[in-house]
Amino acid sequence: MGMVGGGPGSFIGIVHFNGAVLDGQIDLVCGAFSSDPDKSKITGAEYYLDPDRAYGSYQEMIEKEKELPEGERMDFLCIATPNHVHYDPARLALENGFHVVSDKPLTYSTEEAEKLVKLVEDTGLIFAVTHAYTGYPMVKEARKLIRDGGLGNIRKIVVEYPQGWLTEFLEGGDSIQAGWRTDPSRSGKAGCMGDIGTHALNLAEYITGLKVVELCADLTTFVPGRKLDDDGNVLVHYDNGARGVLYASQISAGEENDVNIRIYGEKGCIKWHQMEPNTLEIHWLDKPIEIRRAGNSYLSAIADYNCRLPFGHPEGLIEAFANIYRNVATCIQHRLAGTAPPEEALDFPTVYDGLRGMQFIDVLIESNQSDKKWTEFKK
Amino acid sequence: MGMVGGGPGSFIGIVHFNGAVLDGQIDLVCGAFSSDPDKSKITGAEYYLDPDRAYGSYQEMIEKEKELPEGERMDFLCIATPNHVHYDPARLALENGFHVVSDKPLTYSTEEAEKLVKLVEDTGLIFAVTHAYTGYPMVKEARKLIRDGGLGNIRKIVVEYPQGWLTEFLEGGDSIQAGWRTDPSRSGKAGCMGDIGTHALNLAEYITGLKVVELCADLTTFVPGRKLDDDGNVLVHYDNGARGVLYASQISAGEENDVNIRIYGEKGCIKWHQMEPNTLEIHWLDKPIEIRRAGNSYLSAIADYNCRLPFGHPEGLIEAFANIYRNVATCIQHRLAGTAPPEEALDFPTVYDGLRGMQFIDVLIESNQSDKKWTEFKK
Amino acid sequence: MGMVGGGPGSFIGIVHFNGAVLDGQIDLVCGAFSSDPDKSKITGAEYYLDPDRAYGSYQEMIEKEKELPEGERMDFLCIATPNHVHYDPARLALENGFHVVSDKPLTYSTEEAEKLVKLVEDTGLIFAVTHAYTGYPMVKEARKLIRDGGLGNIRKIVVEYPQGWLTEFLEGGDSIQAGWRTDPSRSGKAGCMGDIGTHALNLAEYITGLKVVELCADLTTFVPGRKLDDDGNVLVHYDNGARGVLYASQISAGEENDVNIRIYGEKGCIKWHQMEPNTLEIHWLDKPIEIRRAGNSYLSAIADYNCRLPFGHPEGLIEAFANIYRNVATCIQHRLAGTAPPEEALDFPTVYDGLRGMQFIDVLIESNQSDKKWTEFKK
Amino acid sequence: MGMVGGGPGSFIGIVHFNGAVLDGQIDLVCGAFSSDPDKSKITGAEYYLDPDRAYGSYQEMIEKEKELPEGERMDFLCIATPNHVHYDPARLALENGFHVVSDKPLTYSTEEAEKLVKLVEDTGLIFAVTHAYTGYPMVKEARKLIRDGGLGNIRKIVVEYPQGWLTEFLEGGDSIQAGWRTDPSRSGKAGCMGDIGTHALNLAEYITGLKVVELCADLTTFVPGRKLDDDGNVLVHYDNGARGVLYASQISAGEENDVNIRIYGEKGCIKWHQMEPNTLEIHWLDKPIEIRRAGNSYLSAIADYNCRLPFGHPEGLIEAFANIYRNVATCIQHRLAGTAPPEEALDFPTVYDGLRGMQFIDVLIESNQSDKKWTEFKK
Repeated sequence: MGMVGGGPGSFIGIVHFNGAVLDGQIDLVCGAFSSDPDKSKITGAEYYLDPDRAYGSYQEMIEKEKELPEGERMDFLCIATPNHVHYDPARLALENGFHVVSDKPLTYSTEEAEKLVKLVEDTGLIFAVTHAYTGYPMVKEARKLIRDGGLGNIRKIVVEYPQGWLTEFLEGGDSIQAGWRTDPSRSGKAGCMGDIGTHALNLAEYITGLKVVELCADLTTFVPGRKLDDDGNVLVHYDNGARGVLYASQISAGEENDVNIRIYGEKGCIKWHQMEPNTLEIHWLDKPIEIRRAGNSYLSAIADYNCRLPFGHPEGLIEAFANIYRNVATCIQHRLAGTAPPEEALDFPTVYDGLRGMQFIDVLIESNQSDKKWTEFKK
Repeated sequence: MGMVGGGPGSFIGIVHFNGAVLDGQIDLVCGAFSSDPDKSKITGAEYYLDPDRAYGSYQEMIEKEKELPEGERMDFLCIATPNHVHYDPARLALENGFHVVSDKPLTYSTEEAEKLVKLVEDTGLIFAVTHAYTGYPMVKEARKLIRDGGLGNIRKIVVEYPQGWLTEFLEGGDSIQAGWRTDPSRSGKAGCMGDIGTHALNLAEYITGLKVVELCADLTTFVPGRKLDDDGNVLVHYDNGARGVLYASQISAGEENDVNIRIYGEKGCIKWHQMEPNTLEIHWLDKPIEIRRAGNSYLSAIADYNCRLPFGHPEGLIEAFANIYRNVATCIQHRLAGTAPPEEALDFPTVYDGLRGMQFIDVLIESNQSDKKWTEFKK
Repeated sequence: MGMVGGGPGSFIGIVHFNGAVLDGQIDLVCGAFSSDPDKSKITGAEYYLDPDRAYGSYQEMIEKEKELPEGERMDFLCIATPNHVHYDPARLALENGFHVVSDKPLTYSTEEAEKLVKLVEDTGLIFAVTHAYTGYPMVKEARKLIRDGGLGNIRKIVVEYPQGWLTEFLEGGDSIQAGWRTDPSRSGKAGCMGDIGTHALNLAEYITGLKVVELCADLTTFVPGRKLDDDGNVLVHYDNGARGVLYASQISAGEENDVNIRIYGEKGCIKWHQMEPNTLEIHWLDKPIEIRRAGNSYLSAIADYNCRLPFGHPEGLIEAFANIYRNVATCIQHRLAGTAPPEEALDFPTVYDGLRGMQFIDVLIESNQSDKKWTEFKK
Repeated sequence: MGMVGGGPGSFIGIVHFNGAVLDGQIDLVCGAFSSDPDKSKITGAEYYLDPDRAYGSYQEMIEKEKELPEGERMDFLCIATPNHVHYDPARLALENGFHVVSDKPLTYSTEEAEKLVKLVEDTGLIFAVTHAYTGYPMVKEARKLIRDGGLGNIRKIVVEYPQGWLTEFLEGGDSIQAGWRTDPSRSGKAGCMGDIGTHALNLAEYITGLKVVELCADLTTFVPGRKLDDDGNVLVHYDNGARGVLYASQISAGEENDVNIRIYGEKGCIKWHQMEPNTLEIHWLDKPIEIRRAGNSYLSAIADYNCRLPFGHPEGLIEAFANIYRNVATCIQHRLAGTAPPEEALDFPTVYDGLRGMQFIDVLIESNQSDKKWTEFKK
């Protein structure tokens, strides 16, 4: 693969790299790690790249790679840039026949997202979006249980994503991460809700198969001087009549990265916490609590497919990323071989999930500015 | 004390009894345990009462007890009946000079609650309401920390009260508890939100000293045939600008009684779970997590005052009730002696907390029926 | 009941009181709370006793109470004194027809314990010993599961009792508790192992029904100047071939009172922690972990019998004490009525458990002084 | 690197691979994955190796790789075979100038281990042993705290390693893992204690810097037909006077892989559980419990050096392996460059740790067969 972004000060570029190479199917062969060609070379050297393939821009990378013989050139582009530099590299990659793995949220605006969807449909290329929390095996176990009706009809969903790292005005200092994420010109319409609220939505909808149909949002900017929301609490209605709460926050001081979800059906509920990802709790209405753990033989086939290690040997977020990358790589290999990939390999977030995240941001902003209680989430 | 309610099928009467007698200051001396005099006698015998003081009605009890010499007659009335039988025994007790400890919510309607407030003010009698979760020592520790500014300015409060016991249509069977709690003629305007949502409000306001000023409620009745809400999700604004989520549910299948609260300030947050009540988590912005445990010498004086046992010897809900009863008994003793009770003994929920709970129910119902996003919580 | 001990500076006297009165079956009617008659009167007044029944010695109490008419005099004696003052009050009570509830360890020496066993057998009186951790409902649930063969043949038992409160030389200061517990003339042959090691043995044998047949002890006195062991690690062999580890410690700095046990059979294991007593974990060989919680309808009858509150309403150590007292009271009531108590009421630790604890201390001391690996635990 | 072992049915080979490649410093360039050359080719293809470098034996691999030009040939050998095939590949690699990363226990016998130590000393080559649990950042945090005297003098160490996967006679079936690990001709003198007991020893000594000086072992073979110990409980004395318990078990039904350690000093204790590796508990004598979490800025430099992700983004066992591999790779790079590696990179288990593990096995076996309580652990 080739990477755009991921240069000095990046957080997520290295995670993409770790996840991509973990299973040995994928090598990083080129990159445009920075808009400064010298910095790009330095990062390329840290990855032991051929210096000729540490490019000064993604435009150059895509152009040059395309000229290389098949088998030598990159097979797909990994996009690990800030939000405002998602669309154009993705577009250019697709137009030149490269598959794409992009970080989230999909783009800077919904308009861009819609264009990407069209391009993916027109080109037939593979497009993954790293809503990586859905790569965890126990999330897949929860999904399987619920999709199979194991909890009965779903009534309530509580999905929470508290972080505390933006409790203070970090964008006033030299934090690259805080800088672009709180800057409307680079992040988009939303701050916290775009950055992590979209993960919460994706997690809830991925596991249950339900869709949010209307919501009531209360977004706040707590930190003086900040330009985008840093906290948002949302009441949510789903398409089957289920209701719930969704919240995301980056000013929840003392929280690390505690994405968690509880889903209540008529027979019981599941609880999952990303910070202890190898455990899935199932609380039954009239039976003892059941704790399922990664790596056990009693898990569903799809959960098992996404575990690397035997029980009791913890896996983490890099492995969740790797599950997405492994599926993408498997799909690309089958595409190259002209064969159909196994069902399990198709299980990764796509451009459609990305689009839905962008639409969610729009609805949140609209609801937040409205005096009406409910704002429709139109598809 | 004397008790009204608490007969066969009651849940909370025995808890009041256990809490009242635990520390040896209070004896149960009489009761009107049931509107059926025979049943009242049977319950009285189970409590080893003098049969003459197991009355057939609270009216009879108050009348007869008043005739007994001081020192022999009951000092106060404990009300452990369904909501619609809170007001009248309380009124009668106050009018006849008896102090009152009442279960929550305070009354069937806000109008009744306002009358009780006036009666309490007119008589100067002691009136406690058993929002018992505030009786836990670690709740008091959290309160002390926050009131002293330990977390800085409070920004966000998440208070949740999920239960699952009304997941099915129990009121169709022989469950006395489900029966009256889901019956508008006995429970009041609200079901779940009155029964346990008021606890959530009380917990949040007790710990922080903040007041809810407006809210947006989404109440639902999930179980077919049920007449009152069994789930409610609420967005909340507090008087200092803090925001948050408050929810209560009785259809969260698999949940037992998981009242929990997270309060975020500028310096960190606290987390407390009622089901493990002896632990208080404090997560700091830039420091390791701190876990304070009941019974330790490092706790504040007020927390220490409410612990009975040394560290590592768990206390539970009965002890939380007992903390309220101990304070009430201490206040009554000082009243009898003509002395001022110690500051610590004044720390129990009063008729004003009860009134606030009733007003909260009104605002929830109003908001739920409104298309407007925000409904004011007028004091 | 009447109490010996429990005066100023006592820790366990008040816990006995709380547990005894909690359920309303038992009143404290008299006491010899201190060897100083004035102090005894003061404590008696704190318990609202008739001043005439706050005696200056247990001898006086037993003599005077015996002269009172049946129905008025105490029914049984509660012994809450240091170990060296267990035997004589117990003996005198039994000789005068009073039942006994004694704290643990049973006596100062095994010789005294054997005499008490004989006296109990000769008099036929009821004699309970407050190994209170076996009063918890989830301990009883574990016992039922294992006794019914739910885990298959038991292979391994790990029982741990770490405390840290004697990490420093407290007996050099004014700590009454540290004073007598580390003093061979009041505590007996063993310090930590007598005080809490006996609880660990009792817990393991109570749950499994197995008996220790030989052991290898490594006792240590870590704190300079201390006269008795403050830590002990023991390898243990049980009568069915099971093996395990038993340890107790009072110098495990940072530990509160973390009695816990893991029992492994061929099909799975149970784990129970006293500090979160309402939870029982069952880990199965090939199935998800199962968490049973107090108050649920799926529990065994004997666990249910020992729960007061519905699920999610925590009970603690006082309630575990109360379960023993309730059983004792029920047995006494049936004895008075000439009827047979229900099976469940017989489930409390007796003088035989007390004797076994004293023998355990002897074997530990013998093993610790021996160069041989294994020392037999003769019955 | 080149790998010996790791073919079909292997568990640990792939973990070595994942850990080695994660950070991009190391490529797998060759392997002798199976003693069957065809199987070796198949595994090589799965790793996308040049077919010419998927060798039929480690002898062939070492010979052929040595002939390749520097920069092209493997830099070091990874040994992921059963115990009886550790020594000879290691010896051959060292004799031919290759560095080595070997799985544990170091060898089949202590004699072999001693020879390897000598060879390492003679050649000056780098030799790492994958006691990977010491690769976790929070283990390093604990080590730093304790080595700096943060807990005061260490008094007690409890290290436990329960697994349940050999509860039944799996070696009677087709489990490759169970087969060789319970076979004295391939595993060595010890079963469970060699396989995982050595990890427990390494963890305790690594963190504390203390050395076991004598011990008392009780090893058992519970499963009928099994040829080696499947459970062992050990009393332990350390060189500073600390005492403790060490146990390992593979018949603890229901346990996954719960390596955990508690270390008690005069000021408090640490607790660490491998199954939740990103958390380190510190329980202080007189202060609230402190929870340190991976990824936070308050951690020591050495812990920080071993974290990849920001707080709240869990890392697991592969990352712990990767920390060892990263250090080895860094040391090799500096060796090639003729420079001194940074201090942090020297922090990995070496051939001396491996030797100590082998000696530990000898002492355990000797103690287990002895009637004496204590057996000396001679260095």
